[in-house]
Amino acid sequence: MKISEILAFLNTQGKNVTFTGNPDGIIYTMSNLDELKDHSIYWIRTRQFASNQLIERLKQCKDALMVCPFEIDGINCIITDYPKGIFFSILNHFFSKSRESTISERAVVLTDKIGKNVHIGSGCYIGEEVEIGDHSILHPNVSIICPCTIGCHCEIFPGVVIGADGFGYYFEGEIPHREIHFKGVKIGNNVEIGANTCIDRGLLTDTVLCDHVKIDNLCHIGHNVKIEENCLIIAGTVICGSAKIKQNAYLAPSSVVMDWVQVGEYAKVGVNSSAVTNVKDKITVFGTPAKRLSPVAKKED
Amino acid sequence: MKISEILAFLNTQGKNVTFTGNPDGIIYTMSNLDELKDHSIYWIRTRQFASNQLIERLKQCKDALMVCPFEIDGINCIITDYPKGIFFSILNHFFSKSRESTISERAVVLTDKIGKNVHIGSGCYIGEEVEIGDHSILHPNVSIICPCTIGCHCEIFPGVVIGADGFGYYFEGEIPHREIHFKGVKIGNNVEIGANTCIDRGLLTDTVLCDHVKIDNLCHIGHNVKIEENCLIIAGTVICGSAKIKQNAYLAPSSVVMDWVQVGEYAKVGVNSSAVTNVKDKITVFGTPAKRLSPVAKKED
Amino acid sequence: MKISEILAFLNTQGKNVTFTGNPDGIIYTMSNLDELKDHSIYWIRTRQFASNQLIERLKQCKDALMVCPFEIDGINCIITDYPKGIFFSILNHFFSKSRESTISERAVVLTDKIGKNVHIGSGCYIGEEVEIGDHSILHPNVSIICPCTIGCHCEIFPGVVIGADGFGYYFEGEIPHREIHFKGVKIGNNVEIGANTCIDRGLLTDTVLCDHVKIDNLCHIGHNVKIEENCLIIAGTVICGSAKIKQNAYLAPSSVVMDWVQVGEYAKVGVNSSAVTNVKDKITVFGTPAKRLSPVAKKED
Repeated sequence: MKISEILAFLNTQGKNVTFTGNPDGIIYTMSNLDELKDHSIYWIRTRQFASNQLIERLKQCKDALMVCPFEIDGINCIITDYPKGIFFSILNHFFSKSRESTISERAVVLTDKIGKNVHIGSGCYIGEEVEIGDHSILHPNVSIICPCTIGCHCEIFPGVVIGADGFGYYFEGEIPHREIHFKGVKIGNNVEIGANTCIDRGLLTDTVLCDHVKIDNLCHIGHNVKIEENCLIIAGTVICGSAKIKQNAYLAPSSVVMDWVQVGEYAKVGVNSSAVTNVKDKITVFGTPAKRLSPVAKKED
Repeated sequence: MKISEILAFLNTQGKNVTFTGNPDGIIYTMSNLDELKDHSIYWIRTRQFASNQLIERLKQCKDALMVCPFEIDGINCIITDYPKGIFFSILNHFFSKSRESTISERAVVLTDKIGKNVHIGSGCYIGEEVEIGDHSILHPNVSIICPCTIGCHCEIFPGVVIGADGFGYYFEGEIPHREIHFKGVKIGNNVEIGANTCIDRGLLTDTVLCDHVKIDNLCHIGHNVKIEENCLIIAGTVICGSAKIKQNAYLAPSSVVMDWVQVGEYAKVGVNSSAVTNVKDKITVFGTPAKRLSPVAKKED
Repeated sequence: MKISEILAFLNTQGKNVTFTGNPDGIIYTMSNLDELKDHSIYWIRTRQFASNQLIERLKQCKDALMVCPFEIDGINCIITDYPKGIFFSILNHFFSKSRESTISERAVVLTDKIGKNVHIGSGCYIGEEVEIGDHSILHPNVSIICPCTIGCHCEIFPGVVIGADGFGYYFEGEIPHREIHFKGVKIGNNVEIGANTCIDRGLLTDTVLCDHVKIDNLCHIGHNVKIEENCLIIAGTVICGSAKIKQNAYLAPSSVVMDWVQVGEYAKVGVNSSAVTNVKDKITVFGTPAKRLSPVAKKED
């Protein structure tokens, strides 16, 4: 497409950017700065990444378009303080393929409460008391074995398991007996759940994931956990039963939150760290057991 | 049902409880103390959770039944020193749904050594040299790819993989070559294996899980590991090859037991801790590498 | 087979060994030293494992064959400085079953770029832009949902997910939005990927696993990671986006490598340790954050 079409799109989105260069330039593809191509769009965070050498090589490509916070003489530039967000919103709009929205013949789907344009991949098992909102995508080999509502525009990657019983036992002598779980899982809108992640069903109340929660691969979400809006849960993290993760919190890779522990708003649990007591709002904890490190740094764009 | 039916059940089980209140009260459901309902059963661990305010609200519900270690004036009470166990044994008996016991048409089952009332969900792959005992449940998308015996009353959650080769290599120069594994996995009775957990096959002898072993989601059980009776292995734990976990041990979330390490009876490895040397009976270790912390506290009811 | 056939095989492989004993002895099976059998092959690393008691018991078995670095009087011995490698190369040659090489009717395979003797198990989903080299094995319930090339002689265990989007987000206000990923995964020859491991697709360039990379169960390989030749990645390890693991590196169980971090050649990240800064060649780091421990010890045979 022409650069002018990209600028028109940003304008309709209310994005406040400045353009310098030739709006008739043609863009076909996107790339990173290790692999320069003709007719490609790039982004750069700060001036330190824009060496003279890079700029000379870019000038030899046809119609390079750079999204960055400053002007580069001789290069088409979309100038913004949020280059990463602008770059990816352009990619999402112009380059993302439309996703399939079919229910695979190779899936077992025992509910009819399926919204519009829902995709369910092969090998999925979707139990009876499940409800899936419009435009949600379930990739292959997802298993949902408990009562569960999933909102709209969710994406669930392969191998996810929703609804295993929580790991709660009572003892008769030395023999552990399972506490049978009676409730389910409630998932809001725009939630994304990474491959092979497991979300346990609730015991007497539901396990809850609120809108815009994003969970990476291979995480464990225990029974009766509540994760509030916009939280990011990175790969390998274990959240134990009845923990509560408040809005905009961030759990780094391979972190652990123990049962009944609350992690505050905008708080951060560090890599491979274990929150064994409550974490206050807006602080970072680190280590096992996790201790206060420093106030959370401002999130980048 | 009437409360008197619950009391009759506890009597047949030899449970020693006292009842105060109206045995003709009717119970339909169970709940927790955040969500009071009419005709519901609850439990409480100690008196500190029984505020006057809670008791007043309970009195406004029809036929509340409390399982607790003390009498509450004006409320139906089953009095016991083990309220959690009594509560869940009532739930298991009166409220648990009967599970399906069918072999899904969408499973691949290459053995005929399947006991009575076994359930095998869709998407399972059950290899040739597998034997499954009576009343065991395999949820969808379980893969068993090695010789394996599974006892009675086991439950295996979705995505579990039994029988990948252990991670053993020998080198020719710098090139690693797999040690092909020849043996299988032996699983006792009443074993439960959480979603997406992996249990590797043995090299020259079997990997073994004894009766009443309970494993949470996303655990790794290496080749030739032996886990003895009643052990609890919490989510995200990694047990490396040839480790031995003795009776009644407890491995906390995201813990690691290194290869060939032995964890003693009633011992406990702490959250996100790494046992790199043997752990004696009845002690708790913590940290990476794990060091002795304190004697194991008495397990709650 | 006769021991002489084993010796002939080693000879064709150019293995430099010495034999003492009776080459007409017959070998039917393999075992370890806890379970002595007639007509069996064993290996032993050093003389300290060869107690007089063991040797007496071995002498009572028919035709024991020992692979070890020294002669044992009265026992058939293949003498080598690399007993483990010689032992397992004999097992691989004489005892390993031929693997199936069929495409299951219960798999969904949307590509026709499948090499010779490829095995694809039931429940697999193999997307359109996938290419699989000769003699590679995909066990049941593997999902490949992005453009992906897999080399020859690879083995992918059940539940592996290749091609989930990397966990990259940009923010509009407090709302995270996914950076849609456009590239795929490139896997070399002789790569092995353990059960339920996840490998994310690349953003603007591919995620890459080079020849002879071996990954254990339940690992996370983030977007745009590159893992060079001969690396061993042990169970539960998390490698975050754009990390680079150089040749012959070793990541111990449950270790973490943070995003953009480089782990040097022959370097080792310790158990449950977190590399948050680059790790130089040939050193070992340990702890969270990981710090230098000592030079890497020489790898055993």
